[in-house]
Amino acid sequence: MTGKLHGLGVGPGDPELLTLKAHRILTSAPVIAYPAPDSGGSFARAIVSGFLRPEQTEIPIIVPMRTERFPAAEVYDKAAAEIAAHLDAGRDVAVLCEGDPFFYGSFMYLFERLGRRYPTEIVPGVSSIMASAAALGRPLAARNDVLTVIPGPLPDGEMEVLIGGAGAVAIMKVGRHFARIRALIERLGLLDAAGYCERVSLAEERVVPLAAVPGDTAPYFSTILIYKGAEAWIHALPAGKTDNAS
Amino acid sequence: MTGKLHGLGVGPGDPELLTLKAHRILTSAPVIAYPAPDSGGSFARAIVSGFLRPEQTEIPIIVPMRTERFPAAEVYDKAAAEIAAHLDAGRDVAVLCEGDPFFYGSFMYLFERLGRRYPTEIVPGVSSIMASAAALGRPLAARNDVLTVIPGPLPDGEMEVLIGGAGAVAIMKVGRHFARIRALIERLGLLDAAGYCERVSLAEERVVPLAAVPGDTAPYFSTILIYKGAEAWIHALPAGKTDNAS
Repeated sequence: MTGKLHGLGVGPGDPELLTLKAHRILTSAPVIAYPAPDSGGSFARAIVSGFLRPEQTEIPIIVPMRTERFPAAEVYDKAAAEIAAHLDAGRDVAVLCEGDPFFYGSFMYLFERLGRRYPTEIVPGVSSIMASAAALGRPLAARNDVLTVIPGPLPDGEMEVLIGGAGAVAIMKVGRHFARIRALIERLGLLDAAGYCERVSLAEERVVPLAAVPGDTAPYFSTILIYKGAEAWIHALPAGKTDNAS
Repeated sequence: MTGKLHGLGVGPGDPELLTLKAHRILTSAPVIAYPAPDSGGSFARAIVSGFLRPEQTEIPIIVPMRTERFPAAEVYDKAAAEIAAHLDAGRDVAVLCEGDPFFYGSFMYLFERLGRRYPTEIVPGVSSIMASAAALGRPLAARNDVLTVIPGPLPDGEMEVLIGGAGAVAIMKVGRHFARIRALIERLGLLDAAGYCERVSLAEERVVPLAAVPGDTAPYFSTILIYKGAEAWIHALPAGKTDNAS
């Protein structure tokens, strides 16, 4: 009997935002794997550290932190081989995934190597965009809004078209693109409809109107949400910014 | 001391996909409110029924099930007044929300009536689109994919432009628009890139390629996911359907 591979969504940061299912699998799996940067600690592991036990085997997957570069295939080949050895020996392996495993996560690189060879289950998680909307206190999307999720590295021209065509927008992985993206949103007349979130659901979370962010830099895991419409939220927006695409 | 209002995301259907936080608040709140149709049971309540206790006060919010119609303001006025009476008496109230409270949910109608008058906390939940991608076993979105979430009622012309501009697409609330949407996806040459999910994460879930759905109807809570790209997934797609917008 081979072991089972679990892709575990561990949510945006608050350990209490794990699902009951992720918690059950996390605390019963003999082997835990997680992405980790080449310097500093693993965010995914930090989220669940209070639930781990010393007898669990840990496999840190050291991924060089070069933003937006396609991750080195060798790193995932090696991690997949190490995980496969445990599965072959009949041990279940839980791979920790920040947010949700299949929403802009690196889990797909392991899944493509192992998902067809071993029994695999994906446990969906709470994503940072839902947690950001919760923290901002306004809808991510409602009724017949179109929601467009845009990765921060996209160029201005493409981003402008996408923002124009949607009632609601979430921009992920803002990071070093922050100043450029904020300038674009201001040019589009949407600054007052935009909220900025970083380290959401953690004690050090920062959730403010985009217009109130003083600097020109943001961490990689930061998100900008734009919510254009719905009459109920007009009070929060100045006149002329309330056009709803729905 | 007034009570606290909680908007609780209860996830897509499997009770184990509640977060630890939603579970804690659900089991400690003296008053539980939830949307319910005018005939039949409440789906949100059914998800958590195993966790409820007889001494908890329940407030079903009976919303006439007319798809896509703006819900009657009187229903939410009345529910808000009933909830406010509990909050004024110092009792916390948890409002159950299918999926995530601010992702196409009806919670916003209560939040706009009560969120500024009472201490309020939103607990984000696992949304059906993340659960659908998990069940289909392929990414919802990856790397620099644009993900566009489209409500099923949108007309063909608008939907076609949106699908063309995104690397990944989730179509929500498919319901009675199923036949029209499937025809559009086929016309765009994307049928083999599309997956269909209904009642995801429940025992009776149905997760199949869109091309394999025999009938022309679907339940309201059904989702179509289109994933155009990423070389790792090409094997699942016939030649010519692998253009990746990222």
